[in-house]
Amino acid sequence: MDLAIINSWVMTCEGKGLGIIKNGGVRVENGRIVFLGKMDEFNYKNAERIIDGKYHHLAMPGLINSHIHSILTLCRGAVHDIPEIEYIPKGLNFFAEHLTFEDFILGTKIAVIEGLKAGTTTFVEYGLGVAGLVNHIYKPYHLSVVPTEMINELSYYEELKPDELYNFHTGMGKAALRRANKLFKQFEDEELIKPMYGPQALDMLSLELLHQIKENAIQRHSKMHMHVAQGERERIQIKKRFGKNQTTVKVLENEDLLGNYLIAAHIHDTTHQERKLLVEKGVGMVGCPSSISKIDGIVPPLADYVELGGIAGIGTDEAPGTGHHNLFNEMKMASLLSKVNNKNPMIMPPWVVIKLATINAAKLLGLDHKIGSLKIGKRADIITIDLKKPHLTPIVSDPFCNLSANLVYSNKGNEVNNVIINGKPIMLESQLIDFNVQEILDNANERAEIIFKKGKEDWIKSGSQMVKYYENGFI
Amino acid sequence: MDLAIINSWVMTCEGKGLGIIKNGGVRVENGRIVFLGKMDEFNYKNAERIIDGKYHHLAMPGLINSHIHSILTLCRGAVHDIPEIEYIPKGLNFFAEHLTFEDFILGTKIAVIEGLKAGTTTFVEYGLGVAGLVNHIYKPYHLSVVPTEMINELSYYEELKPDELYNFHTGMGKAALRRANKLFKQFEDEELIKPMYGPQALDMLSLELLHQIKENAIQRHSKMHMHVAQGERERIQIKKRFGKNQTTVKVLENEDLLGNYLIAAHIHDTTHQERKLLVEKGVGMVGCPSSISKIDGIVPPLADYVELGGIAGIGTDEAPGTGHHNLFNEMKMASLLSKVNNKNPMIMPPWVVIKLATINAAKLLGLDHKIGSLKIGKRADIITIDLKKPHLTPIVSDPFCNLSANLVYSNKGNEVNNVIINGKPIMLESQLIDFNVQEILDNANERAEIIFKKGKEDWIKSGSQMVKYYENGFI
Repeated sequence: MDLAIINSWVMTCEGKGLGIIKNGGVRVENGRIVFLGKMDEFNYKNAERIIDGKYHHLAMPGLINSHIHSILTLCRGAVHDIPEIEYIPKGLNFFAEHLTFEDFILGTKIAVIEGLKAGTTTFVEYGLGVAGLVNHIYKPYHLSVVPTEMINELSYYEELKPDELYNFHTGMGKAALRRANKLFKQFEDEELIKPMYGPQALDMLSLELLHQIKENAIQRHSKMHMHVAQGERERIQIKKRFGKNQTTVKVLENEDLLGNYLIAAHIHDTTHQERKLLVEKGVGMVGCPSSISKIDGIVPPLADYVELGGIAGIGTDEAPGTGHHNLFNEMKMASLLSKVNNKNPMIMPPWVVIKLATINAAKLLGLDHKIGSLKIGKRADIITIDLKKPHLTPIVSDPFCNLSANLVYSNKGNEVNNVIINGKPIMLESQLIDFNVQEILDNANERAEIIFKKGKEDWIKSGSQMVKYYENGFI
Repeated sequence: MDLAIINSWVMTCEGKGLGIIKNGGVRVENGRIVFLGKMDEFNYKNAERIIDGKYHHLAMPGLINSHIHSILTLCRGAVHDIPEIEYIPKGLNFFAEHLTFEDFILGTKIAVIEGLKAGTTTFVEYGLGVAGLVNHIYKPYHLSVVPTEMINELSYYEELKPDELYNFHTGMGKAALRRANKLFKQFEDEELIKPMYGPQALDMLSLELLHQIKENAIQRHSKMHMHVAQGERERIQIKKRFGKNQTTVKVLENEDLLGNYLIAAHIHDTTHQERKLLVEKGVGMVGCPSSISKIDGIVPPLADYVELGGIAGIGTDEAPGTGHHNLFNEMKMASLLSKVNNKNPMIMPPWVVIKLATINAAKLLGLDHKIGSLKIGKRADIITIDLKKPHLTPIVSDPFCNLSANLVYSNKGNEVNNVIINGKPIMLESQLIDFNVQEILDNANERAEIIFKKGKEDWIKSGSQMVKYYENGFI
């Protein structure tokens, strides 16, 4: 597909700032960007398809959701406003355990539809048996994905009690690692599918397996993406397993498991010194501001990590946690939550948080030679946004350009009108081309009704905080 | 106008919870709600206009923006990510000073278009010479407004230096009070226009004038809406004027100026004890979470105020501050910012924050006999929302209803499809009836370009933090 975006603002996300071009255009051929610049130097007339921005569209790199568990989307709104300790065992589990594989597929469909409509072009999809999601959704719909196979050594059949050391089952870990390794072979010729290893967390697998994963990741020029220092439950396990002065970061350091092959998700249970060490070792970070603030009442230390010079991305985690898969809103949350957490309005300005969802996320994933910014030769993963909306008005460029501020602080995420992945239009004039959205939503509502009813009895018996809300007539 | 909303979810916002009815309907006659209930008891067939929710719309009370200064909307994106002390004198002022009355009108138009599209039906419009905005916009467009005339005794021509006691000019205050009093006469027959007094802040007018305003407010069964304990600049002035042990709340208490006639905006520079006193005295509170977190890096103490049993509302303040006039997003911000500020995910759940924008806001304004909830006999200020959106899916009702959680945590603010004020449709199927939106946005962009250029020279000379961002190529 050969296409040209004309008469648009262009935000390249290259360079120190955001690389904003007024009255610019982009030319795409064979999935690559072949021209980028001002309209008066742009010869676009022979393009097969022309997307005319009429001076009020913005073309920018497609956004990268660096951490998403999409299979739980049918449980959106199932659990919220409760103590963190109840979140999974007395909340999500009652409903999630009734999800079938078809429900996972349906949940992922809704998540990617939602994500695409809000400008996401690459999804770091983290889960068990992730190949199924790739084969059913990401590949046939021509989306860009980093399938990250979740690896742990826990049994499905044992309840985890935070105060007792978890039992490890090496067979479970081996099977998961095999699944992960298979992804690389299975999708080796796919431009849009770049697998990664997902050791779940240091308390959920043995060091032996973790070392094996590290070797595999390095050998395949991939990365390992791990939940790191997630809070109390993990802390208890680490102390029990490794000694009472140990922390997740200390153990990883002693074991030589810190390097640029590691992506550490969340890290809210780390000290500033530990984060400094992570940055020095080249470890990347992913923060999920809405999710962590809603589930735990805390702010992921993205601002500190960025300040230290670390590479970071942002993600929406899972729908029951964050509520949504809208990276524009997540940029705003990353900025405002960090400001109040540091009592400093200068923290995490727009040009920083926009990069967390574009070029810095691409660096985090080791994909910045392909995606994350608009640059000649890079892959054409491009979104356009209609800026002529009351909530984004006005847009000015002299003396300075207020576009990035309005995009972060005022954007709703519904202004995206065109989505192009690898040069192929996925959404045109706000319509997704290959998805029957209404039918998918109807199915999802029907299935959710069944799933919630199946969970009802056990949920009520649990007497959890959510049940109290229910008995009080709040929900 | 006689209309019926059928086959919809209905959220009344009455009672302890949110009063959710599945498969319900609402009947409106002569601007009042005359039926509310389940579809199987609803005889709607003879209605002149039928809005069919097709089982996936939600009807709820129109939202109330309890604190908005809309005239500065043309300066959206003009000032951000700088020290609070620079915000007005080294930021906003360079551009705001070039706004003409026509620009104020244009800015207000954009703000109300934005607000209406995101479900706001009542605007507490706070500003100097607010009658002009009412006559040019709120009244002709049939919107509900609480015009709040800003009253202070400052001269336009004197620069305010926080370290020196401000000079008061009684003439300025008298003129403003006259303007405020005139509103009541001018709009006494208007159902949709309910004026209020707006003494700007305790450091900006004399106690004598404040007492006079209080008497006027009580006499007219109105309220006085004042910025209270806004931070450092106010604190310095209060200590200079009243003694170094004094605070805004202490002075107001000693002067017998605390009562249910007072609406205190912001109050972030108060202690818990002071807030307890305010609540005991029946004072209402307005918080503006996005604005205060973005400008000051702090969280308004809404959660504490609600916990103490106080009546509170939320507002979007001014566009350059908050970025937007979207109350759905503001509900989310109120919830998540309060959670992290209290390190507690249970703070400010959806059923609380939804009420801050509906029935509790109506109580705050003393208008709960008319608006803020759906109830037979109340005014028909109603919005409908299309729930069949990927980011709101699924919606379930058994065992509990996840609607309020999805509305707060996942709503973008663009799902509102019908807006009815006093029984009159203002927006139908997402189209505003009386506004030429595209023309207004074009005018706004043109005017903003001129205004920003006029401010350019002085802005650059100021060498402010924003100027440094500009010189560094970030904006």
